[in-house]
Amino acid sequence: MPTTTWNRHHVLSLADFTTAEYDTVLQTAASFQEVLSRRTKKVPTLQGQVVANLFFESSTRTRSSFEIAAKRLSADTLNFAAATSSMTKGETILDTAKTYLAMGTDIMVIRHREAGVPNAIAAEMDRLGVRVSVLNAGDGQHEHPSQALLDLFTISTLIDPANPRLKLLKGKKIAIVGDILHSRVARSNIWSLIATGAQVHLAAPPTLLPKLFAEYFSEESGDRSQESLVISPSSPSPQLFLHWQLEPALQDADFVMTLRLQKERMTAHLLPSLREYHQLFGITRAKLQLCKPNVKVLHPGPVNRGVEISSDLMDDPEFSLIQSQVTSGVAVRMALLYLLGSGKA
Amino acid sequence: MPTTTWNRHHVLSLADFTTAEYDTVLQTAASFQEVLSRRTKKVPTLQGQVVANLFFESSTRTRSSFEIAAKRLSADTLNFAAATSSMTKGETILDTAKTYLAMGTDIMVIRHREAGVPNAIAAEMDRLGVRVSVLNAGDGQHEHPSQALLDLFTISTLIDPANPRLKLLKGKKIAIVGDILHSRVARSNIWSLIATGAQVHLAAPPTLLPKLFAEYFSEESGDRSQESLVISPSSPSPQLFLHWQLEPALQDADFVMTLRLQKERMTAHLLPSLREYHQLFGITRAKLQLCKPNVKVLHPGPVNRGVEISSDLMDDPEFSLIQSQVTSGVAVRMALLYLLGSGKA
Amino acid sequence: MPTTTWNRHHVLSLADFTTAEYDTVLQTAASFQEVLSRRTKKVPTLQGQVVANLFFESSTRTRSSFEIAAKRLSADTLNFAAATSSMTKGETILDTAKTYLAMGTDIMVIRHREAGVPNAIAAEMDRLGVRVSVLNAGDGQHEHPSQALLDLFTISTLIDPANPRLKLLKGKKIAIVGDILHSRVARSNIWSLIATGAQVHLAAPPTLLPKLFAEYFSEESGDRSQESLVISPSSPSPQLFLHWQLEPALQDADFVMTLRLQKERMTAHLLPSLREYHQLFGITRAKLQLCKPNVKVLHPGPVNRGVEISSDLMDDPEFSLIQSQVTSGVAVRMALLYLLGSGKA
Repeated sequence: MPTTTWNRHHVLSLADFTTAEYDTVLQTAASFQEVLSRRTKKVPTLQGQVVANLFFESSTRTRSSFEIAAKRLSADTLNFAAATSSMTKGETILDTAKTYLAMGTDIMVIRHREAGVPNAIAAEMDRLGVRVSVLNAGDGQHEHPSQALLDLFTISTLIDPANPRLKLLKGKKIAIVGDILHSRVARSNIWSLIATGAQVHLAAPPTLLPKLFAEYFSEESGDRSQESLVISPSSPSPQLFLHWQLEPALQDADFVMTLRLQKERMTAHLLPSLREYHQLFGITRAKLQLCKPNVKVLHPGPVNRGVEISSDLMDDPEFSLIQSQVTSGVAVRMALLYLLGSGKA
Repeated sequence: MPTTTWNRHHVLSLADFTTAEYDTVLQTAASFQEVLSRRTKKVPTLQGQVVANLFFESSTRTRSSFEIAAKRLSADTLNFAAATSSMTKGETILDTAKTYLAMGTDIMVIRHREAGVPNAIAAEMDRLGVRVSVLNAGDGQHEHPSQALLDLFTISTLIDPANPRLKLLKGKKIAIVGDILHSRVARSNIWSLIATGAQVHLAAPPTLLPKLFAEYFSEESGDRSQESLVISPSSPSPQLFLHWQLEPALQDADFVMTLRLQKERMTAHLLPSLREYHQLFGITRAKLQLCKPNVKVLHPGPVNRGVEISSDLMDDPEFSLIQSQVTSGVAVRMALLYLLGSGKA
Repeated sequence: MPTTTWNRHHVLSLADFTTAEYDTVLQTAASFQEVLSRRTKKVPTLQGQVVANLFFESSTRTRSSFEIAAKRLSADTLNFAAATSSMTKGETILDTAKTYLAMGTDIMVIRHREAGVPNAIAAEMDRLGVRVSVLNAGDGQHEHPSQALLDLFTISTLIDPANPRLKLLKGKKIAIVGDILHSRVARSNIWSLIATGAQVHLAAPPTLLPKLFAEYFSEESGDRSQESLVISPSSPSPQLFLHWQLEPALQDADFVMTLRLQKERMTAHLLPSLREYHQLFGITRAKLQLCKPNVKVLHPGPVNRGVEISSDLMDDPEFSLIQSQVTSGVAVRMALLYLLGSGKA
């Protein structure tokens, strides 16, 4: 493990992550990636600690990833799924969290459909003066930090497998395409990509990317042209670009991050049809011609094949990083659990 | 671990628990409470044994507590949840239990909405001459022994942390307030508190505490005044008191045990309204003025804040033992699994 | 463990199992059966490996058996239950499997209501050139290999506990009774029993055993008498017999395998009534008089008592092997996981 100072008790948002923290996560994850290629893919680091997956909103994919990460650190795991639970009847979420605290949980991994729930639980833990850590595994449309960190790890290890670090992405052009308005993944990704010094280009239909969205990341007003909006979060460079067409975002892009389109949006009249969406914003081999020759495509999964991305492109290892993202997810979550938990054991 | 003789194969009810058995559980739990404060909160005691949580009625809280207790003893755990299971279709409960027996289960932790199911399974295991143990984790309105034992442990370690034992409660006045009629927790608590030599005062509206209830614990007829009923289960002292008002139960009480009010009761016309219930039987800081100055309040959880107990009182560590109860639960369940399982490994 | 060459990467069907493979499974399972009788019922064989139970169709019984088998080999387990999962929305089954692959799964245990899903996933894994193994835990009406192997193990260890092997069943008469048409268990059993050289007699009402069924196992046309059909799958002996009455199948039988009757069949008008079914094809003590004196009865469970088999017969250890089958299931599944996984660790 890299020697490092890590003073964060909780991982709730990437909005205030420092460069040193990003690099610590990336380098710790790289160490675990190496462990995972060994004959025995397990380390005793968190033996005797309890990781509770408190999933008030169901998610098999993220929960399995955290569960396998915890088990490979030799932690014991508890799974709480609100959907099938009798626990929450009449009880507040804070009371549920405090019950798991009192049972001896060391790290709580929390997903909830409401933004801010992990923060509220973390604040309560701090108020009580206990050492339990809270890890946001997705809250409403707010943030999904471990997903953005695994995206960062996937990209940076592609550039330098031995030494992934934030500044490898400096100057890269990265497109984020799809339902940005409702995506917690997009919000966390934007924070981390801005931190790298990359040029971040968002592309979506106007209903899924309102102009006001940019103000979440910067109070400065940008250059409001008709088709694109350019804002500078903290300095003239890096910059965040908003587009309501796909092409300017893809032009010379190094990486294209696609977002999951929740089909429920259709019923809310935010989209004309899935076919039209795919025609305008779906990523295909043809559209990738606009990008740099060695462009790579990411998607947080699960993918609606033929909607966000064409089926053949998704399966093409020359372009698709989707499987790497899943593998990176385990290493990054091991890193986060390790960094949060190693001080406690 | 304390040296002890423990000959019980199953824990189904506290009705016939002996003083020696209570004290063995309390002292074994105290040993585990100490283990839980160590750096490595895990002991290899039950390695290679299987604890199956057979929850025919769903309960996240109790199931998680047993699961964490089993894992801290290094047992393997299997979770069976009837709600999401295809197993029981057409199959009898005894057949389900025998299937888990045949798979190599060493201890079965059983919850069922019908009273007597754990007893029936235990009887079948004994008839088959197998060494598997059955632990009642709540059956209908019958009993919930591990909950009453953790309440006992919470109270007795408060009085003497180093040496919890039954007789520490002798002469204490303990009020049990709420839906006593439907509460398996209350039934188990009454058995254990009578065994301590405490004065046990039950308080509830008449619909939730029928006079006949007392006959469950004593065949002697008591002093039937208009507002209270006093019966002596086995000797002139200790005694069990029934009240249909809160105040006489709280008067000079050392401990107040509140019970969960299941809101479904409302539909059965057993209660006028939750607000009126709270006004008459809800525990508040003001009502605690009647009790001893250092009175403590317990609740098995999950709590309906503002119904059984006022929200601020629940969170006040000066009065509330609710979080301690959850922590005690893990230690007590480790003790029970250890006592049932240690002869088998 | 027996020294052996085992080159199979997946266990999908018994149709092409060789005698050497059957005997390797039987002897490896016998070794684990011995381990399970030891003080510590756990071996470190698969430590650091991940066994993912991907149950797209729910099954508590088979899933628990695989889970306990994996844990006794010290593997980490992940449970995926499609019924309670949000994972599959919009995602293909292959994508779900590839996600678990990317998370580092070593062995996938797969159940699906559609025949062929495990094969499709295995083919995809091979195409990708990865070392992950696929184990079919029941696919549609196709096969359920581990169930047939545990039946084989149960019977052969009964004949020679120390040295179970295929040829112990040679010449035995084995009846398979019940809903053969819809039973994946029957299909796998027929393959394995034909391989032993046993005489396999199928008995069912015509709606549950069409004449065409035989063509699945042999292209040769058989001797089509009115009441029975005899076909020779590969040589004049062994033979597969089809009966539309119970009696000729039971006559002098050494073993009677009953199949679960899914009550849903009633609504499809395939059966007149459960009572009539029991009268004609239910196994009772009286009907067993036709069999050899020391005949034994098997059932894959869960049993509809009083339908496929009379309740008293099911509980009679002189005749019923039902509990042994469950125990054998853990040993056989340990053997399969060991054989598939030991090359990987």
